[in-house]
Amino acid sequence: MNVDVQQILKNGVVVTDAALERLLPSANTLPHSIHRAMRHSTFAGGKRLRPILAMEAAKMVAGREVPGADELGAALEMVHTYSLIHDDLPALDNDDLRRGMPTCHVAFGEAIAILAGDALQTLAFQTLSQIAAQPATLIDIIREFSFAIGTGVGMDTGLPSGMIGGQVMDIEGEGQKPTAELVERIHRAKTGALITTSIVCGGILGLGDLLAQPDSSATLAASPKDVIAALRSFGENAGLAFQIVDDILDVTQSSEQLGKTAGKDTASDKATWPAVYGLEQSEKDAASYIADAFAALEPYGQSAAPLKALAQYLVERKH
Amino acid sequence: MNVDVQQILKNGVVVTDAALERLLPSANTLPHSIHRAMRHSTFAGGKRLRPILAMEAAKMVAGREVPGADELGAALEMVHTYSLIHDDLPALDNDDLRRGMPTCHVAFGEAIAILAGDALQTLAFQTLSQIAAQPATLIDIIREFSFAIGTGVGMDTGLPSGMIGGQVMDIEGEGQKPTAELVERIHRAKTGALITTSIVCGGILGLGDLLAQPDSSATLAASPKDVIAALRSFGENAGLAFQIVDDILDVTQSSEQLGKTAGKDTASDKATWPAVYGLEQSEKDAASYIADAFAALEPYGQSAAPLKALAQYLVERKH
Repeated sequence: MNVDVQQILKNGVVVTDAALERLLPSANTLPHSIHRAMRHSTFAGGKRLRPILAMEAAKMVAGREVPGADELGAALEMVHTYSLIHDDLPALDNDDLRRGMPTCHVAFGEAIAILAGDALQTLAFQTLSQIAAQPATLIDIIREFSFAIGTGVGMDTGLPSGMIGGQVMDIEGEGQKPTAELVERIHRAKTGALITTSIVCGGILGLGDLLAQPDSSATLAASPKDVIAALRSFGENAGLAFQIVDDILDVTQSSEQLGKTAGKDTASDKATWPAVYGLEQSEKDAASYIADAFAALEPYGQSAAPLKALAQYLVERKH
Repeated sequence: MNVDVQQILKNGVVVTDAALERLLPSANTLPHSIHRAMRHSTFAGGKRLRPILAMEAAKMVAGREVPGADELGAALEMVHTYSLIHDDLPALDNDDLRRGMPTCHVAFGEAIAILAGDALQTLAFQTLSQIAAQPATLIDIIREFSFAIGTGVGMDTGLPSGMIGGQVMDIEGEGQKPTAELVERIHRAKTGALITTSIVCGGILGLGDLLAQPDSSATLAASPKDVIAALRSFGENAGLAFQIVDDILDVTQSSEQLGKTAGKDTASDKATWPAVYGLEQSEKDAASYIADAFAALEPYGQSAAPLKALAQYLVERKH
């Protein structure tokens, strides 16, 4: 199977944006300010990587396009957007620009930005609860998802922490010399957990769809538990590679190329991979994690080709 | 049936606090700061009214103590706490004290307070997804709950807006002369929606428990749809009466009696019931909404006595 990554990415943006357009209250819905703020940050030109990974994971498992995967993707993007809105606030990273546009609090004020982030998190869970799938499938997804985006405590999934836990470690680590252990822990939690859960939740939705298909038993290459474990391993390794590449680009690319302030990590003494290992070793490590990600999907042959191609794209990108 | 409200309130605090103690990560869990901040605000002496209403609604429907109702209550209290943490932030109400204790951002800084609120919202959904009930029951609860605590758009439940929508209207209404329409809309959304959903979600959990009991058909006085509609009407009316009384107490009681700054609503030109209708009419309106709340539960006879007694307590309280 020849995979056209550009086509997957392009199509994924169209499908995700259509779902978000449908699910987010319109700009003319009262109260106006918060709905405009939610839309401002949601439709700011995101690449929709998490939704695309979720949709492809669902497809790998179910062997077909999975109904509702676009809504799962939209929920993931809502949480990604809420985390960026809150991360950009003056009390956190204090960023004025994102993708060349004013950040939410710059455009709408801090109060509305805080509440818009809150509302996007709520809308994500509301969206998940309304996907047309079996309740048991949706509860599995909500459980997995809520662990991944919280402080992450109590997880028995191998992830050291969740998204918010990662943000806290990142804030508290600033100004200290980053250690190898801390930088890996932060990366796995702050960006890795949401990327991993995108792929795992896609897999859970795909399993639900597969079981609803007649004669589906023959098409699954492994037990449901093994499929989810393989997707989780793929996600953890690809997510870490993704963040290492992000750190590398912050050092090597200009602000114009990135669409955000370059060199900011170094300036604020952030815990980054290059700060601990240097650029050369960071590039080797990214490649090595991608190889581990590929290995996890080995048993799934050609059906895993799109996910692998996406992971390859993530580490080769220049912005 | 003679209802001992004080006993219900006392027991409700014990049961809810035990569930919260179990569900919130310990103060010694890494990263420390956020878990301590979450606990600081969660265990700040709340009366646990929403959990108590949820547990009593579940009991009214199921005819017995409902397993998991304590966890539903804990989730409601997590969201109530997150909304207070964010509401107290400098960019919103800028409150330094709550129940005589430093607010979350005063004790832990703004960044951690924002993230602690975020994490409490996440933990609420995680908690709901893990209650030991049928997945279909949990999905019904999560759907209802997420509508109530969001901006509330798209609800077909008769509620004009959700909790966050109410907060936005409240912020944007400050400094303007409040109208009767606006104050009712804000109250129904900002406090009414969470109180109503506490009672409705309790009812949904109770229905799930009832259906799991052998020979349960004889014990339900009406169709499941009618029971939920009655509880919703009770909640909407009692919630509005509760907020009107809150407004009255802000005018008539001292800061010491309230444990928070009295007269603050008037000072900041907040949309309150007395500001629109005066104190005397406000008292009459509170009594009238309580009468409507009682009427909604009329068909349920003695099994509704605890909920009615709680509503009566809510309007007779002095702080």
